[in-house]
Amino acid sequence: MARRLLNHSAALLLAAYLASPFVGAETLPAAAADEATAGLLRERALADSGAYKIVESLTTEVGARPAGSDADARAVAWAVAKFRALGYDKVYTEPVKFTAWRRLSESAEVIAPITQRLAVTTLGNSVGTNGPLDAEMVRFQDFEALQSAPADSVRGRIVLLTRRMERHRDGSGYARVLQMRSSAASLAATKGAVALLIRSLGTDDNRLPHTGSVNYAPGNAIPAAAISGPDADLLERLVQRTPSVRLRLNIATQTQADSTSYNVIGEITGQDAKPEIVMMSAHLDSWDLGTGAVDDGFGVALTMAAGALIKQLPQAPRRTIRVVLFANEENGFDGARAYAARDAGDLSRHYLAIESDWGAGRIYALRHPPQDAELTARLSRALAPLGITLDGAAGAPGPDLGFLAKAGVPWIQLAQDATDLFDHHHSANDTLDKIDPASLNQNVAAYTTFAWLAANTP
Amino acid sequence: MARRLLNHSAALLLAAYLASPFVGAETLPAAAADEATAGLLRERALADSGAYKIVESLTTEVGARPAGSDADARAVAWAVAKFRALGYDKVYTEPVKFTAWRRLSESAEVIAPITQRLAVTTLGNSVGTNGPLDAEMVRFQDFEALQSAPADSVRGRIVLLTRRMERHRDGSGYARVLQMRSSAASLAATKGAVALLIRSLGTDDNRLPHTGSVNYAPGNAIPAAAISGPDADLLERLVQRTPSVRLRLNIATQTQADSTSYNVIGEITGQDAKPEIVMMSAHLDSWDLGTGAVDDGFGVALTMAAGALIKQLPQAPRRTIRVVLFANEENGFDGARAYAARDAGDLSRHYLAIESDWGAGRIYALRHPPQDAELTARLSRALAPLGITLDGAAGAPGPDLGFLAKAGVPWIQLAQDATDLFDHHHSANDTLDKIDPASLNQNVAAYTTFAWLAANTP
Repeated sequence: MARRLLNHSAALLLAAYLASPFVGAETLPAAAADEATAGLLRERALADSGAYKIVESLTTEVGARPAGSDADARAVAWAVAKFRALGYDKVYTEPVKFTAWRRLSESAEVIAPITQRLAVTTLGNSVGTNGPLDAEMVRFQDFEALQSAPADSVRGRIVLLTRRMERHRDGSGYARVLQMRSSAASLAATKGAVALLIRSLGTDDNRLPHTGSVNYAPGNAIPAAAISGPDADLLERLVQRTPSVRLRLNIATQTQADSTSYNVIGEITGQDAKPEIVMMSAHLDSWDLGTGAVDDGFGVALTMAAGALIKQLPQAPRRTIRVVLFANEENGFDGARAYAARDAGDLSRHYLAIESDWGAGRIYALRHPPQDAELTARLSRALAPLGITLDGAAGAPGPDLGFLAKAGVPWIQLAQDATDLFDHHHSANDTLDKIDPASLNQNVAAYTTFAWLAANTP
Repeated sequence: MARRLLNHSAALLLAAYLASPFVGAETLPAAAADEATAGLLRERALADSGAYKIVESLTTEVGARPAGSDADARAVAWAVAKFRALGYDKVYTEPVKFTAWRRLSESAEVIAPITQRLAVTTLGNSVGTNGPLDAEMVRFQDFEALQSAPADSVRGRIVLLTRRMERHRDGSGYARVLQMRSSAASLAATKGAVALLIRSLGTDDNRLPHTGSVNYAPGNAIPAAAISGPDADLLERLVQRTPSVRLRLNIATQTQADSTSYNVIGEITGQDAKPEIVMMSAHLDSWDLGTGAVDDGFGVALTMAAGALIKQLPQAPRRTIRVVLFANEENGFDGARAYAARDAGDLSRHYLAIESDWGAGRIYALRHPPQDAELTARLSRALAPLGITLDGAAGAPGPDLGFLAKAGVPWIQLAQDATDLFDHHHSANDTLDKIDPASLNQNVAAYTTFAWLAANTP
């Protein structure tokens, strides 16, 4: 019965399926139909997934949407309306509380032995300088060098860390410099430093510094900011000429306790009486410098579009497909924390979850595959035409999904090419033009394939 | 006698020379020696011209140096000291008067139907807005479309021009959009517009707008600024959604009449009694956004280094070699005007002149060759190993040299590859890292070859 409905490419899939050693003959017709449908979804997504229009809408009509801002509230309203327009069966929000942080103003300049202005951006959560802060600069290569430095060399100074981020396909250069941004400020504070400057965590040569959050240890908060790569080069050349380089920093920031934003959730209701969930997630908030196109408008658009393509099928999936757009990923992961806490008794309903928050590159690998060998086999076959292979690497769930993974939610990763991601990540350059529509469609094709097969595999 | 002094490559040159139909036999030995020396200079420049250290020094120790600023005065002192350190025979300055312009602050944002901040830079010479200026935006494709527009469609509005600059090796895309920056503000003013915004004259996709000067027609000055390419894209998308887009501009600028800067001049004194001059020029000032590395630290460094390489030879050139670093090219060509006026009775001493102010790319063509066929033949042979050919295109003298060319000073052009120039031209991205030392050495090799042959050819 099912076989009569299959088109030509589905018939080819079926032939491949029959050759597979993974599955018993009794599940054959339903499985073949599932893979045929996955193939249709994949082809529709590649032709026009609808995702580009979604991210165009978000970046044009909302733009930068730092958590807790007016624009963040507009983004929540936008997401609710967009889920509804896309035909999701159930659309709802859940409140997320946090302390919102806001940049007010910032400047940095060399004041001796010469004067030069620096391109600077304050790090998220940073305290301000309370007016101009003049101090001598002391440079170290990286976090580890600062750890080894005697406090005498740091006390009363502005610490500069200059390690360059390396460019790799998997984006692994980021993890190797992340401590400079996340933890060096408090380390410097314990040694008596008055502020921290870092070379931006980025692989570009633009005078657009990259922000990101700093995590203070209690009682050790000093102002922390990032300068662009060319500005870090300049300071390195200056300090080679003379050991005494003086800087002026002027940073003003603001926090607002008990701010509220919302996780926005859309669902395609499954047929099964047993209410299992296949979850796709991204984050709705963005940093304030760009328009949050790549980070994470891309993920928002692709997960919304993937669900919408499934909704357009004549038959509903067996499991429910839930798309979760988390609040305040960038400056605290508060949406993911709230989701994990609220759903603590309910996380066991999550059959399998995935997150998109790693740029706008094409997907090249399936990692951390499901324990279910049949589903893994189906996914491998269905993703292969997209150039996606199971490459054996360990994988990672993603920043928000990490909180659910710790609580036992099963996850997979569809690993994206991040070669260019850190050219614009967390900078003013994160705008729509950095998204390749063909890459976005390839991502949607993979996600919709994943979601359909995960929702239907017994 | 001369032939015994030649090395191997000089002997090869000599062989080529003997095959040339251009020169009479009687000039042969001196000509061969000149070309051999040119070959040596070329090889030394390619190995290490010293120019990179010069532009590194200028951008690190002085940085941005808009005409009339404190940094401009420091640049003048730097140039005098550098000419002396390089061993120039004569170093002097000549005063240049002008009205200095300074940017104080600037912001631009969409305020309806949504709110978004725009990356904006005020154009040089622009007047301010006297506080926040709110108005509806009206978009045109380019200068010509604005010319055709009825005043009713423009009156009381902020005019936006969005034509994209095209990327070409010869940089010719610039001329095709230049009127948007130079002349559209006053055209818009005559139709009652309250301000002008243009898409940056640039080929990049960075949120770093490109400045440059606006030329007002008398009595028709309205504030004029450039937004980045991605911001122009955003406004185009917005205006497609709704015809009524409102903007807020806030621009403050300052002018200072009777400001003074200086042309800085270094000379290698020639042997000839007849005081003819071979001139190499660049401009010392820069825009305020970057550190003026490519525009025109590159030209400053290469002309200074080319003269210095000649000074290091055991024999002086026959004609005097003069390196002129002009004041305030960017915002009025005042240094070139002053030079042409001061030297009005003296311009006939200029045997041949050249200017470098077209980026940091490699030279690929000799254009507007000298009328002297022998010198042209010598130059063609000596530049060929650098990949430089006489390609028959008309050529252009360059922005400063243009004033002297009008007054009858003979000039040649060594045309540079400008494919990437407008990615960073007049923007904050004009920093040292955009200069390829090998390209700079190739430029010095060409200039020093040119200067030597021009100074010695009878």
